[in-house]
Amino acid sequence: MVLQVDLNCDMGESFGAYTIGSDEEIISSITSANIACGFHAGDPTTMRKTVRLSLDHSVSIGAHPGFDDLSGFGRRNMTLSVEEVYDLVTYQIGALNGFVISEGGVLHHVKPHGALYNSAAVNKEMAESIARAVYKVNPELILYGLSGSELITAGKKHGLRTASEVFADRTYQVDGTLTPRTKENALIKNKDDAVKQVLNMVKKQKVTTTSGIEIPITANTICIHGDGENAAKFAKKIHYALHEHEISVKSM
Amino acid sequence: MVLQVDLNCDMGESFGAYTIGSDEEIISSITSANIACGFHAGDPTTMRKTVRLSLDHSVSIGAHPGFDDLSGFGRRNMTLSVEEVYDLVTYQIGALNGFVISEGGVLHHVKPHGALYNSAAVNKEMAESIARAVYKVNPELILYGLSGSELITAGKKHGLRTASEVFADRTYQVDGTLTPRTKENALIKNKDDAVKQVLNMVKKQKVTTTSGIEIPITANTICIHGDGENAAKFAKKIHYALHEHEISVKSM
Amino acid sequence: MVLQVDLNCDMGESFGAYTIGSDEEIISSITSANIACGFHAGDPTTMRKTVRLSLDHSVSIGAHPGFDDLSGFGRRNMTLSVEEVYDLVTYQIGALNGFVISEGGVLHHVKPHGALYNSAAVNKEMAESIARAVYKVNPELILYGLSGSELITAGKKHGLRTASEVFADRTYQVDGTLTPRTKENALIKNKDDAVKQVLNMVKKQKVTTTSGIEIPITANTICIHGDGENAAKFAKKIHYALHEHEISVKSM
Amino acid sequence: MVLQVDLNCDMGESFGAYTIGSDEEIISSITSANIACGFHAGDPTTMRKTVRLSLDHSVSIGAHPGFDDLSGFGRRNMTLSVEEVYDLVTYQIGALNGFVISEGGVLHHVKPHGALYNSAAVNKEMAESIARAVYKVNPELILYGLSGSELITAGKKHGLRTASEVFADRTYQVDGTLTPRTKENALIKNKDDAVKQVLNMVKKQKVTTTSGIEIPITANTICIHGDGENAAKFAKKIHYALHEHEISVKSM
Repeated sequence: MVLQVDLNCDMGESFGAYTIGSDEEIISSITSANIACGFHAGDPTTMRKTVRLSLDHSVSIGAHPGFDDLSGFGRRNMTLSVEEVYDLVTYQIGALNGFVISEGGVLHHVKPHGALYNSAAVNKEMAESIARAVYKVNPELILYGLSGSELITAGKKHGLRTASEVFADRTYQVDGTLTPRTKENALIKNKDDAVKQVLNMVKKQKVTTTSGIEIPITANTICIHGDGENAAKFAKKIHYALHEHEISVKSM
Repeated sequence: MVLQVDLNCDMGESFGAYTIGSDEEIISSITSANIACGFHAGDPTTMRKTVRLSLDHSVSIGAHPGFDDLSGFGRRNMTLSVEEVYDLVTYQIGALNGFVISEGGVLHHVKPHGALYNSAAVNKEMAESIARAVYKVNPELILYGLSGSELITAGKKHGLRTASEVFADRTYQVDGTLTPRTKENALIKNKDDAVKQVLNMVKKQKVTTTSGIEIPITANTICIHGDGENAAKFAKKIHYALHEHEISVKSM
Repeated sequence: MVLQVDLNCDMGESFGAYTIGSDEEIISSITSANIACGFHAGDPTTMRKTVRLSLDHSVSIGAHPGFDDLSGFGRRNMTLSVEEVYDLVTYQIGALNGFVISEGGVLHHVKPHGALYNSAAVNKEMAESIARAVYKVNPELILYGLSGSELITAGKKHGLRTASEVFADRTYQVDGTLTPRTKENALIKNKDDAVKQVLNMVKKQKVTTTSGIEIPITANTICIHGDGENAAKFAKKIHYALHEHEISVKSM
Repeated sequence: MVLQVDLNCDMGESFGAYTIGSDEEIISSITSANIACGFHAGDPTTMRKTVRLSLDHSVSIGAHPGFDDLSGFGRRNMTLSVEEVYDLVTYQIGALNGFVISEGGVLHHVKPHGALYNSAAVNKEMAESIARAVYKVNPELILYGLSGSELITAGKKHGLRTASEVFADRTYQVDGTLTPRTKENALIKNKDDAVKQVLNMVKKQKVTTTSGIEIPITANTICIHGDGENAAKFAKKIHYALHEHEISVKSM
């Protein structure tokens, strides 16, 4: 059997005169683009250009909906009702899909952003609301969420295909959750160690936790960070390492 | 031959805690709803509810995109580039379409709002940009615009079906344009006179201008205002009068 | 000794084409206006007009800062950092003060809005951040907060004068907190009972709780709701009752 | 007599996660900072930090109000009424002033941004509306505007002190206006030529136009661009050249 994994990256997070990310450099190393939909980041022109860029590189396009909080970049939690989250997600998938259709593509997946992603990982009601919203717009869409999270559970329950996401440069705790960023050992700073973790997760579907114990993990897609100085370089490095180990890099 | 006309109304213009319009009252008198898409008015929850309301009453649903100017209700002109207008319109059509698909309906038409509508009526470049944006999302969509305007011309040129819009309570000048609101005789305040103008426009495709001369006009759809105290009552009155004159009231 | 109390009301919460509240009717019954500052509600023109209205009626003017969440009317909690809350409050006080100075008045107080008010009532860090922001802009400003709340404690600690706010139409629990709106007996629907509670609170600085026990309460200012059908009528009724009982109605 | 000139730069135009400009580098070369007020750019936290940075470097602080158009960075014209412009400017001056007072400083000037600046240069009504708004908040504020523009005329008429602004790297036409950016010779790309133009303007209050004719110009303050790769370097170069020619660089 041929091993396979997807490399996804948040894209199109520029806004008007403001630029974030190095989309044009990183696009050639990834297989899935999660494109911001105008709420936490992204404006209509940026969205169209990022959709075009993705299609030109045969990268699968996903909607990347977030809270309506541009000044907080969608990273601050907001206590929305289940209904408000449902409508927020429907709106943003629709908006991005407008550009995808207009440019001749097909929408492939949905991955919530920032605080919405984190909330959907642990809050069952939020997770189900998002899964229902995605399903109602298009049951063929793949729902991306944190591996082992409520969002993945909710997606499966509602009949969606799901992609369990793992992180190259974050450490895992023995219960399978990510080590909180407030802790010192939250990040894997050595790039080679990060690559090693990725290979381990993809080949064995296991991860070595901070306590040294190895636990099982589902790794369908790897999150690549698009900002930071060496983002594009690191993406290329991971892509190359996977290729070297005869792991097929492609979207689901 | 059976005469036929459409009655359209701007809907879903409430926002969060703020309410505008009496959508639930007026919905039973109209055949097309132009639903605000979150830029000049409307929020995701209002959009979903208004789409649902329209489907429940078999009213055709249109996207009603406007400038990104909530505090000005989309009524203030903004000097956007042709590309920005194209993207603005694509985004908003997509966003509304998300709710239409989610609720099991089909998007029927697009009618620009306020200052964007007025700009598209006289500015050929803007008109063409909007027509292209609509066509690229879905060539089956009908483009609503001011009768005799650049927008109708652009829609036809780009292969779209168009609906020429006329007003019940606005007077027309001898060159076919609406009398500016700054002039005293811009509005037809007497409801019976307004109904009479409507009947004349639909039956004869002519309108008597402020100078007394009758000129030809294309009247596919009549704009009903949804705000104002007696909006619902007036909508009902027009609907009834059309029915009395054996004019079929339905969307295109 | 002459008894005295302040009647405050949230004002200037309209936005662009959207109207909320009946400011012009209610202004003559109150002594303090908390004016929205453009984040949860209010736009520059509404702010200037509401400042003018308040000055014309000799009503004390307060800034009414809220979360940056127009679509949620500032009623949804947002997890901001202490620093972000400090800056949010400073900005909004400054913006309103621009209009107060421009119109020849003097800013009198600050009362946080909605979810920010609720958060400041129980979260000590948030409360202190708000108190510091107010003090740094002007140590003469009076801080309005829920009677018995962390915000009142923080205001005193930082050297501000404070106004303890009580509610006419909300019931209190035996621990001094408001009965949550989710409970059936949260609201006092009978207007006469509401007036009776107000008189009791002002005259005896006590309130009868839902368990029948009377507890002490500090009542410097009474919150009058500005929306709802009979808001203006009820404001007038309370004002009249206080006057009848020889309680001086004026701002601090 | 000692010659004197001010060097001003637009500052604090970052927003949330988005960064624009190199404020910390350029601050030591300028004497006036025009700080964005949250409408076209800037968020409360950025505003406070930029005020603090300016005070720490003894740089005079000005409000830099713009249109409410974050996605267009305030560079797109909006057809606001005279009253709306008045309120827009009052709001933004007030908001910035909140931070200036809070940090222990004194607001020094006001310079409109982008499309509002351009509109105020040629539109007498807009210019007068802005001048009145500034005067009503504080008649001691200095109004910065394009040298020879309607805004300078309006400021003087309304009793404000004014600062006539000239550009180092833009060419001038024989009628005293800037060569439009659409023309090839609009920019002075050679840094030495730009410095030469500045020295000429400050020492002789004259500028050599694109037609070769020298015309009089009032040069109280020179606009330094804060973005672009070598902005800080060029600011330092101009500052040094002025110093070499014994021209005192300080704010008015």
